[in-house]
Amino acid sequence: MFADLKTMDAGELEADIAFGEGADLVTVLGTAGDSTIVGAVAAAPKHGKGVVVDLIGVADKPARAREVVALGAEFVEMHAGLDEQAEPGFSLDTLPRAGEAAGVPFSVAGGVSAGSVAAVQAAGARTAVAGSLTHVGRRIGRPPGGRRRTIGSATI
Amino acid sequence: MFADLKTMDAGELEADIAFGEGADLVTVLGTAGDSTIVGAVAAAPKHGKGVVVDLIGVADKPARAREVVALGAEFVEMHAGLDEQAEPGFSLDTLPRAGEAAGVPFSVAGGVSAGSVAAVQAAGARTAVAGSLTHVGRRIGRPPGGRRRTIGSATI
Repeated sequence: MFADLKTMDAGELEADIAFGEGADLVTVLGTAGDSTIVGAVAAAPKHGKGVVVDLIGVADKPARAREVVALGAEFVEMHAGLDEQAEPGFSLDTLPRAGEAAGVPFSVAGGVSAGSVAAVQAAGARTAVAGSLTHVGRRIGRPPGGRRRTIGSATI
Repeated sequence: MFADLKTMDAGELEADIAFGEGADLVTVLGTAGDSTIVGAVAAAPKHGKGVVVDLIGVADKPARAREVVALGAEFVEMHAGLDEQAEPGFSLDTLPRAGEAAGVPFSVAGGVSAGSVAAVQAAGARTAVAGSLTHVGRRIGRPPGGRRRTIGSATI
């Protein structure tokens, strides 16, 4: 279970609760402070689980990716939100390129489509998130059935 | 009703839903992109409501405060999270000082106590949030009774 908490504070508390409820992975925002990421990472070993850092809103994604993996994150999500995707000049290509540049494990989320998923995978992404394609939160390679809330920050 | 959504994406959609449900103010994270803040602001006039930008995690709070008020935010929240408050050397004083430096309407949240609220008010804050003091989400000057979730990002 992927608990997309997008935690911004109280990292250890939020992660601990989610892991305790059965989450396998939780997300923390990359714009959160290092102490929040360290807190969430500290909660993971007790449960044998992991922390993913969502880099939405982070300007220098490769640099922050390396920082948070050094802090103990399992991988990062190279993520452009719906609002960013709607901005003039947005290109999905920036996300897998940022992943390649980072040199750490990463996923990509930002408008991945049937036409672009091959390029995302070729760049080395371990997961391509196709939320805006399906609008039900399916991840490519998993069976459908999950539901995604479109308000709030929790996607489970 | 203060809907502390801490929106990071889909600004117009999230704000529109919250205003439609009766929120008077919604929060957007200052680390969100400008297009997310603009989207939330766009939803406000339809309902006669307002947007507050929460500056948790923002390095240069005065500069970002001025930017987001120029984009249409009612005021900003000079906010240090629980994790930041626990870091060595943290001082609440930085928050009202950032508000004074910004020169725009602001609230302060970051461990305000009975002993510090006077200084926060003297700095010109329109609201002092005393969440960690009460742990039930009361705001100074309002009657008690609200409840605050300590996980997740919604405080209503």
